[in-house]
Amino acid sequence: MSGQPSRDKWSREFPRWFDWIIAEAEVYDYGRYPVKGMGVWMPYGFQIRRRIIELIRGILDPLGHEEVLFPLLIPEHLLRRESEHVKGFEDEVYWVTHGGLEPLDVKLALRPTSETSITYMETFWIKSYKQLPKKYYQVVSIFRYETKATRPMIRLREVTTFKEAHTVHDSFEDAERQVLEAIDAYKKLFDSLGIPYVISRRPEWDKFAGALYTIAFDTIMPDGRALQIGTVHNLGQSFTKAFDFKIQLADETLDHPWQTSYGVSDRVVATVIGVHGDDRGLVLPPNIAPIQVVVVPIPAKDEEGKAKVKETLEEVARILEEAGIRYRVDDREDLRPGAKYYYWEARGVPLRIEIGAREASERAVTLVRRDTLEKSKVGLDELAGRIREEFNDIYENMKDRAWSFMKNRILRTSDLEKAKEWVKERRGIVEIPWCGREDCALRLEEELDAKALGTPWPLEKAPENAKCPVCGKKAITWMRYSKTY
Amino acid sequence: MSGQPSRDKWSREFPRWFDWIIAEAEVYDYGRYPVKGMGVWMPYGFQIRRRIIELIRGILDPLGHEEVLFPLLIPEHLLRRESEHVKGFEDEVYWVTHGGLEPLDVKLALRPTSETSITYMETFWIKSYKQLPKKYYQVVSIFRYETKATRPMIRLREVTTFKEAHTVHDSFEDAERQVLEAIDAYKKLFDSLGIPYVISRRPEWDKFAGALYTIAFDTIMPDGRALQIGTVHNLGQSFTKAFDFKIQLADETLDHPWQTSYGVSDRVVATVIGVHGDDRGLVLPPNIAPIQVVVVPIPAKDEEGKAKVKETLEEVARILEEAGIRYRVDDREDLRPGAKYYYWEARGVPLRIEIGAREASERAVTLVRRDTLEKSKVGLDELAGRIREEFNDIYENMKDRAWSFMKNRILRTSDLEKAKEWVKERRGIVEIPWCGREDCALRLEEELDAKALGTPWPLEKAPENAKCPVCGKKAITWMRYSKTY
Repeated sequence: MSGQPSRDKWSREFPRWFDWIIAEAEVYDYGRYPVKGMGVWMPYGFQIRRRIIELIRGILDPLGHEEVLFPLLIPEHLLRRESEHVKGFEDEVYWVTHGGLEPLDVKLALRPTSETSITYMETFWIKSYKQLPKKYYQVVSIFRYETKATRPMIRLREVTTFKEAHTVHDSFEDAERQVLEAIDAYKKLFDSLGIPYVISRRPEWDKFAGALYTIAFDTIMPDGRALQIGTVHNLGQSFTKAFDFKIQLADETLDHPWQTSYGVSDRVVATVIGVHGDDRGLVLPPNIAPIQVVVVPIPAKDEEGKAKVKETLEEVARILEEAGIRYRVDDREDLRPGAKYYYWEARGVPLRIEIGAREASERAVTLVRRDTLEKSKVGLDELAGRIREEFNDIYENMKDRAWSFMKNRILRTSDLEKAKEWVKERRGIVEIPWCGREDCALRLEEELDAKALGTPWPLEKAPENAKCPVCGKKAITWMRYSKTY
Repeated sequence: MSGQPSRDKWSREFPRWFDWIIAEAEVYDYGRYPVKGMGVWMPYGFQIRRRIIELIRGILDPLGHEEVLFPLLIPEHLLRRESEHVKGFEDEVYWVTHGGLEPLDVKLALRPTSETSITYMETFWIKSYKQLPKKYYQVVSIFRYETKATRPMIRLREVTTFKEAHTVHDSFEDAERQVLEAIDAYKKLFDSLGIPYVISRRPEWDKFAGALYTIAFDTIMPDGRALQIGTVHNLGQSFTKAFDFKIQLADETLDHPWQTSYGVSDRVVATVIGVHGDDRGLVLPPNIAPIQVVVVPIPAKDEEGKAKVKETLEEVARILEEAGIRYRVDDREDLRPGAKYYYWEARGVPLRIEIGAREASERAVTLVRRDTLEKSKVGLDELAGRIREEFNDIYENMKDRAWSFMKNRILRTSDLEKAKEWVKERRGIVEIPWCGREDCALRLEEELDAKALGTPWPLEKAPENAKCPVCGKKAITWMRYSKTY
């Protein structure tokens, strides 16, 4: 192992490990492109990202979501239409002011999110409750002039993989049903990637600008800090009123419809990397690994051994091809097997097949799992079936490991000293009884030097005798706090 | 047929027909989004576009192209590094000047194309001839502040589907080989869509800014105007010199590598629509049709007939499902069959299956081709095989029809009067003997009121006795002229 930073579970080196591995595995080139907060998806990273996007499509499309593509540029007057919304974003919007050498008549914003432009077009497209519910989504770049420290894939000025869904409904109730559908969809997404999460209702003072309320998914990264990985907003009628967007209802009256929106971003990729990786590099779930199996022939000394290895290699390739497995044969002649192992382990390939002369003569190969590094001998006749089983075991193991790590980082307590120590030393999330008052939560944010993530969703009531440790009044639920990204 | 514009082959109404059909078939919403030259891909259009992008990936990936994603924003100093290049683009670049309320230190361009940013990053990534050839591509939005009249999908200020490939080579010869590979790749792409083309070497004065030369694909739209649908540039060492990008060669010397770049855009979608459509609307090639077969049950009067239709419908759905065909059953109860036919014909679905009670009782259905509107009766047992055959016939017919239309619009002549009439009345392309002098070509552009597209690629020599009709000197090849988009 070279002098790279360690991603030990309890380590504060994690951010450095993250920077190291996205460069080492050629995922994302960050810090060299000459605009702060913007990076380049390299070929290998692009394929991981692409498979995650396909996974998202595979979940949203069957639920009736329709993919669209809206312009990047939003004219200033459109962005300003909903007043809470623009207040939430105006400090961090990039403005296009010139075309060629001419100043533009109307300033154009690089979209920070698309509620305004989508609602504007919906006024043309949707006239009647008969067309509802309507569910659009797009996968696009969004731009935010972040003043906080930027981080690759986690806090960017160009978020290149923003999947934003926007829905329209004829009643508040149907929008509420949509919020549940969206939460289920995101659970499915994160589950299929083995990513653990807690779901919170964000505090009133931290909801999406323009929403009635925001439900958020957070995970805990290896250094114990929470990372927001998905949000679902019930927008109520804020935008439809601001755009005077009305539809005909079943009772023939006209009214403003109801909306929701929900999004995930590049952070999903960052989380797969961060949550599952280890000191050797990436560990990718088989469903999104660009290469699922790498095959490494071990050079034999004698001619007979060479022939056996070659023959077995061809048979293995045929088996993988027929089984529809994404594989790569690494037959580079200028690299020793050990260097190849190192190379593909860094890239997180779920399974490695080593073909040595001795085993080859028995029609067998060695299978090595990336997640546990366990080796086993497998006969060629059972290889395809065995790989499928291993993929499943790998996925289950990665998921279990990630969930148990996260659960061990969540502490429910009413003891403030314990909570403080948890946040400071062990890190992770603490859940503290809360009376429902903003003042008390803000006070605790300061005291814990942590951020209030919100209350558990679905709502959990605090026990009868639980008290807010700040004001001493009766607690109604729990508030979650954590250091965050 | 409502009062929509006609796309008669000889009609000047074509641009109006185009605007009509992209709205009618819900492909692309143009003219209502409040920024000039920018539109919205609606769900149905998005699926057409997406399948075309997949087709492109399916051609480029096996040739060793690697997909990447670069930032949208290019700092001014990067864009200005290659002087010819920036001269070609500076009048049409959008500039971001503010982040929030603060002016930015460095102006940021919305990428008009990515040679500069990609070459800049290649200086970090590529050090040796051993890594070459290297072929990157990305599918992104590009921005050009067009001063000419904008048109949906054809001349936009945001081109949302720009597939740009960028390659690096250790010799001029290898870059030349790459130009041929790129031309072959684009032939394959257009062939698979049944799109006819002529390939020209663009005149020196009209090549890509910064290139040694440009090879372009043009097609002829139904109104006789040429449309550029793809370009391939040999960039020589212009950008590698400007960025002082050097690599180690096989002989251990250091030198600037050679580059090519090539692109296609939204215009591929526009061409599929324009070249194949008819007065009823879109006609889509089966390989990219979002819905390949629409099934319309014909309401029966008696109970027995109803049961038969229902039973047959279920069997047809099972057959299509098993055959992996993208189909839709249109069982809307508030629409008569005729209205459904009209609806799906406008959307260009290649095949329609009508299920009537009488045929159903014989285990048969009616198959209707979108391209010819021919009807035929097919037994259920042969349905799947027959559909595959029809898809192939449809594709071949569409392709032949489109090629013969185009070939009939190309006239080779040395008679200027004939050429003038052709361009003015019949429209299309004229090929006129050319001496090789820019002056003569520019003079003919004026006289014909047409644009010089370039000389045939591969180069065709003019006959021994052919003379340039402007200067009377010996002609060396042909120059193509046409009205263009």
